[in-house]
Amino acid sequence: MFLSDSFSVNAENHLTIGGVDTLKIAQEYGTPVYVLDEDKIRRNCRAYASSICRNYPEGGLVLYASKALCCKELCRICMDEGIGLDVVSGGELYTAHSVGFPMDKICFHGNNKTLRELTMAVEYGVGRVIVDNLPELEHLEYIAGQQNKTVDVLLRIKPGVEAHTHEFIRTGQIDSKFGFALETGEAQDAVQRAAAMRNVHLTGLHCHIGSQIFDDEPFIEAARVMLDFMAQMRTQYSISLSELNLGGGFAIRYRETDPTPLSEKYMDRAGAFIRGYAEKLGIPVPFIYIEPGRSIVGDAGLTLYTVGSVKTIPGVRTYVCMDGGMFDNPRYILYQAEYEAVCADRAGDARTSVVTIAGKCCESGDLIQEHTAIQPVQPGDTLAILCTGAYNYSMASNYNRNGKPPVVMVRDGKARLIVRGETLDDLIRCDL
Amino acid sequence: MFLSDSFSVNAENHLTIGGVDTLKIAQEYGTPVYVLDEDKIRRNCRAYASSICRNYPEGGLVLYASKALCCKELCRICMDEGIGLDVVSGGELYTAHSVGFPMDKICFHGNNKTLRELTMAVEYGVGRVIVDNLPELEHLEYIAGQQNKTVDVLLRIKPGVEAHTHEFIRTGQIDSKFGFALETGEAQDAVQRAAAMRNVHLTGLHCHIGSQIFDDEPFIEAARVMLDFMAQMRTQYSISLSELNLGGGFAIRYRETDPTPLSEKYMDRAGAFIRGYAEKLGIPVPFIYIEPGRSIVGDAGLTLYTVGSVKTIPGVRTYVCMDGGMFDNPRYILYQAEYEAVCADRAGDARTSVVTIAGKCCESGDLIQEHTAIQPVQPGDTLAILCTGAYNYSMASNYNRNGKPPVVMVRDGKARLIVRGETLDDLIRCDL
Repeated sequence: MFLSDSFSVNAENHLTIGGVDTLKIAQEYGTPVYVLDEDKIRRNCRAYASSICRNYPEGGLVLYASKALCCKELCRICMDEGIGLDVVSGGELYTAHSVGFPMDKICFHGNNKTLRELTMAVEYGVGRVIVDNLPELEHLEYIAGQQNKTVDVLLRIKPGVEAHTHEFIRTGQIDSKFGFALETGEAQDAVQRAAAMRNVHLTGLHCHIGSQIFDDEPFIEAARVMLDFMAQMRTQYSISLSELNLGGGFAIRYRETDPTPLSEKYMDRAGAFIRGYAEKLGIPVPFIYIEPGRSIVGDAGLTLYTVGSVKTIPGVRTYVCMDGGMFDNPRYILYQAEYEAVCADRAGDARTSVVTIAGKCCESGDLIQEHTAIQPVQPGDTLAILCTGAYNYSMASNYNRNGKPPVVMVRDGKARLIVRGETLDDLIRCDL
Repeated sequence: MFLSDSFSVNAENHLTIGGVDTLKIAQEYGTPVYVLDEDKIRRNCRAYASSICRNYPEGGLVLYASKALCCKELCRICMDEGIGLDVVSGGELYTAHSVGFPMDKICFHGNNKTLRELTMAVEYGVGRVIVDNLPELEHLEYIAGQQNKTVDVLLRIKPGVEAHTHEFIRTGQIDSKFGFALETGEAQDAVQRAAAMRNVHLTGLHCHIGSQIFDDEPFIEAARVMLDFMAQMRTQYSISLSELNLGGGFAIRYRETDPTPLSEKYMDRAGAFIRGYAEKLGIPVPFIYIEPGRSIVGDAGLTLYTVGSVKTIPGVRTYVCMDGGMFDNPRYILYQAEYEAVCADRAGDARTSVVTIAGKCCESGDLIQEHTAIQPVQPGDTLAILCTGAYNYSMASNYNRNGKPPVVMVRDGKARLIVRGETLDDLIRCDL
């Protein structure tokens, strides 16, 4: 029940995550608190990894897109599961490095990596730098030369396929700040330049087609475009590209009305397609990467809050105010993101009350969900917002000088802290 | 020129703030960096304070709404200027307390203050708690009783006046998570309860009608509603309310096409109105509070970035990518907020290029401004976004594990650090 097999209701009618009573977690760690289910995260990792093993014997690597939620413990879990990481900043790279993550299993992304970040990437010896633009390619050649190293790179290509949840469009030209365009000759030029470099070693291509994608069709379409281009580079310039990174964007269910996402089934059709189409084009079947982020941690997490005031405005709506808000979950004010809300104290009861869940920030737009069904609640109740594992902690701010809540991990019926909450002294530590 | 008298162009054609060359600041502190002009902040404080002195001899206090930008140094400046603070969380209160801010000049706001925050407020002896709802009133009575103290409070009232930049509406009933409604009898009930309490001392009322308001008409309309209600409470229950807090919401110019805001002229008409109307109603002329936040720091600040890649998509647009983004300024992705952009290296040149300014985050919506005029720029240039003093640092996140930039203050031709930038070690310091 409740969107994910992580969430359930126990004999006391309390909401559980990974079998642990959420009221006990709220009591022990206070609220707001982010909670993650380690087994669920590991199951999600394995679903992708085993899908590749089963369906794509040519080889591939799952990279956890750590922008969804980056902290030391997540890096350790990925390391333990044998998957790689997709990092997008020096900060994410540093986090991985600090726990001894194998650097060769890291892809470093970004449309505008700084010189300092590129230098770090070369020093650490990251597996692949995903090069976004020509100046970056030049910088990398220079930095690698200075360090007497070779850097393996993929080039980020705009495949002209843009996916939106249930449909995709095949555009001639994507309006995006990321990557090299195919149709202008930019991509072709970049491949030639990279291939001719001394300290940069071009191993393949990367593309990313969107977020919250429920179907495999757009991925297959993107793979087709990329393989065509790889074949073209081989024929035209004898440049062999042996790796294809298809990016991420795999959907999760946020509402009970959402369809079941692909997850492990993704590679069934896509793998078969890539193999078949590469053979048809007469090019080597590429090593592949996929980059799930949201779908590794999203439905493995929830956030617990305590209800404060409840305000009914007759004929308008009822506001349920709680002790978090846009500082710990900015996704509603940013994207009007949908979530399910549950009263953790009476989780098995029918959700017969329709309310607006508001945060504590001094901003009228600080809402977490509007007109959503929940059990009738009162001040002091514990409120859970489900499927907040991705893009909540990672997007959290200190708006209104609120500290970021702690992150708690549950496993084998026990809870442990993996990121401590920020204290009042944390909030002023950088102030002179 | 450039929106605010803080910003100018020097003989080298470089952008200056408070007379200091922005290129030198970028060089010394790196980018991204927030820069503030102390003299401008002080001028803004004085404009409001002197407006009250001049026009409202009955007395009033300017409270800086610190949610716009809260750090120790801003608290020190407000203290030095003799104005008070509007704080909205334990974190903001703690910041003020840590520099010895006079607690009696603080108003504590919030629609859902936690018990811990209310306890802090009573312990610290804040000047006024702005009570938002009945449970809070009860908590406060209890906490103050426990501590053998009396707490002065204002009640937050929904005046039924909602202002939006250039117009306002007089609604019967505002759909808001904040405060007590007038028309349902809620406000009346709260006044009676508060007046009857032993440890809570009701001194007056508060209202807040919106943000970025350019006219004084809605403030006058709100004052009228509040004074009517104060008169009603006096006649009906012999409850004397001697203070009126009219909140904030004073606009600043973000674009050159914006009109000139009221700032110091605000109290000219409003003061006269309040005095005259109170006399007409036969009630004592109230002590007033106003709460400017954005208009104290907004146009006293800018953010400096370094241009990385510049991508022209023929027939679509040119992306200018820089080394900050939604993590240091989320206002464009949140509200499509408008800003002026200037190439600091050639600030006096004509802005003949129309570009989209993109951040470095791995998110296609990570833009700072679209289709905006700027001098033609190239990689390595220093780019300034103007009027970022408010709601930039205070809303900053660590999205993509980027550290928050430092805040630099200029005064008397010199720059000094007031908030240090976050390091890589800061980013992992809470991780276990």
